[in-house]
Formats: sequence, structure tokens, C-alpha cells
Amino acid sequence: MEKGIVLWFTGLSGAGKTTLARALSTRLAEEGFPVEILDGDEVRENLSRGLGFSKADRDTNIRRIGFVARLLARNGVIVLAAAISPYRQPRDDVRRDITDDGARFLEIFIHCPLNVLIERDVKGLYKKALAGEVKNFTGISDPYEEPLRPEIIIDSSTESIDQSVERILARVIEAGEISPQSALVESAHSLLAGD
Amino acid sequence: MEKGIVLWFTGLSGAGKTTLARALSTRLAEEGFPVEILDGDEVRENLSRGLGFSKADRDTNIRRIGFVARLLARNGVIVLAAAISPYRQPRDDVRRDITDDGARFLEIFIHCPLNVLIERDVKGLYKKALAGEVKNFTGISDPYEEPLRPEIIIDSSTESIDQSVERILARVIEAGEISPQSALVESAHSLLAGD
Repeated sequence: MEKGIVLWFTGLSGAGKTTLARALSTRLAEEGFPVEILDGDEVRENLSRGLGFSKADRDTNIRRIGFVARLLARNGVIVLAAAISPYRQPRDDVRRDITDDGARFLEIFIHCPLNVLIERDVKGLYKKALAGEVKNFTGISDPYEEPLRPEIIIDSSTESIDQSVERILARVIEAGEISPQSALVESAHSLLAGD
Repeated sequence: MEKGIVLWFTGLSGAGKTTLARALSTRLAEEGFPVEILDGDEVRENLSRGLGFSKADRDTNIRRIGFVARLLARNGVIVLAAAISPYRQPRDDVRRDITDDGARFLEIFIHCPLNVLIERDVKGLYKKALAGEVKNFTGISDPYEEPLRPEIIIDSSTESIDQSVERILARVIEAGEISPQSALVESAHSLLAGD
């Protein structure tokens, strides 16, 4: 069986990780690929309730997302993991575990200038963080370690979601991460399964 | 894509859940099926470190295994979940979530008389539990709620592992849980993928 791919979206709160992952997921599902989104907030609810936002707890949360992503990817699923994942070390550890299994890992850095994020402030969290009402807020009162060699960089302040989706899809296909063969196999699969 | 199956092994410590899951996993992999084992102890390490053995913590652990099993099964994987899972409610909740996705769920009750388990005591845990050195030990100082309508019952005190493996496999295939078609699709998949 062909191994899957983990697309790991990292970036500050409000940069657009979840929105982009959802749009890309829809596009990939249309193309017939098995796809799962592991969203940081959702995973916290299901796998990490009780964990906070200390470095240790954040790292544990990321390792748990990585553990699940690994199981899915080695069974052929395209996993879109969307989590702030502020620290480099756990991101790199997850990458190593996943590629060790023969699956692929692409780090996608969703960049957006801090002043734009503060301006947008969709969830009103930056206002609270700046006022000191929310502690350990990444980018304000907690560190964010930018990826050193991300496979893809998206600037969500200048690029539309559609543009980003097509760019990631093209990058994944062009790099041979999704071979035309897998599309063929998928067709045969659907045909024989009669669905 | 064809949905997977969750085979949920429940029973007391030392009854043989993990041993049987491993033997069955090997057999299923030989047949070309995508298979993952979610072992209670391993999952505790990866997803539930910090949780104890209170009812609430046990339930949380089971729900986490169920969450991961669900993601895998809806992507076509055969998941062998091996965990004491002493309480009926979380087992039934996991069953509902998984079947709601269109995947299948078979509860496999690994039964073994308590006196045999105490006699065997492979890990020396029953001795400690009986001496009161280990608290909240299922079957001794903590309840075990037997399944009311398990799809399969195994008595590991009278049945060999090979017998149990073949019996589960036959039950799964005969019930049409694995259709001949899926074997055909798997062959086409392998052929086209060239592996």
C-alpha cells in the first residue's frame, strides 16, 4: 500500500492554518484522496483535555497529534495537521517519526505579520493577550520558533486561500508526493468496490 | 473507499488480549489487509501519560483509543484495540461513534477464569493486587463490567491462540465483514501500485 503524507501547518493563532487546511481537505477529497484534518483545538478536546499551555504541555499535545498523524499516514491517508506548534524540536521529532515509517512530511509555514494578526483579531485573543488577560500567548507572551527549512511558506496577508490551496496542491503533485499512479490505483479501487 | 473494522478486545489483565491481537495482526497482514494494533499500555504511553486508574481516567483513556480507532477505521484500516476497558458505557459509546461513520465494530470478550489468571500471573500483578500493593486493580479491587452482547467470546483458558485467531478470522469473513471483493480490490491495488 502506498504511504500517505503529513502536511503540517504551523504558524501563529489567526494566521489561517485551520481555514487553509479545511479548504485543501475539500479539494483533496474531490480528487478522491483519503484525507483527515487533525486540528490543534479539536485534538486538545479529544486527546489532551487537561493539558495547558506550558512548554511541556504544548510539546505533549504536538507529540500526540504526531502519533495519530503517523498511524494514519502509514496507512495511506493524507493528514492535514493544523496546530500552532510553536517549538521546533517536537515538529522535527514528528517529522522524523513519520518519515521513518516511509510516509512523507511537508512543513507548511503559515506566515502573517503580527500587526496584521492584531488588526484582524478574529477571536479577540490578541486584544486579551496584549492586555495580559491571556497568559502564554504565542507571539505575544510566549515564543514562536519559525521553521528553518519549511517545504512551503504561505503569507496569508497577501495570498488568497484559493491561491494557497492550488500552490500547495501543485507543490505536492510536482514534487511527486502524489504520483499519477496513486490516482490510477484510486480509480481501480473505486471501480472494483463499486462506489 | 471501503471502511475498516474495529475489533475491540476487552477482558481482565493477563487474559491474553495483546497476545491474541498480535497473532491476529500478523495473520491479517499476511492476507494483505492494512492493520494497526492499539494496545492499551502503549496508548497510555503515547496519548494518556499522566492519567491514572480512576474510573474517570480509565474512561478518558478508552475514549482516546476510540477516537484514534475511529479515524483509522473510517480510512479502511482494520484496528485491533486491546485494552481492559472495564466499563460498558465507554465501550458502547466508542461502538456508536465508529458505526456512525460506516465502519464496523466487533466486541471480542477475552474471558479467563480469575483463578487461572491468579495462577498464571505473568506480570506478578495479581499477587500485588491481592496483597493490596496495587490499588484499583480490575477484577480484584476494581470492577469489570462484562460485555452483554459481545460479537465473539474467547475463553483463553481452554482455547489455543491459533484456534482463537482462526475463529475470529472466520467470524469476520463469514459475517461478510471482510468481503471477497475487498480482497480483490486489495489485489488490484497491489498490482497497480507494483508492490
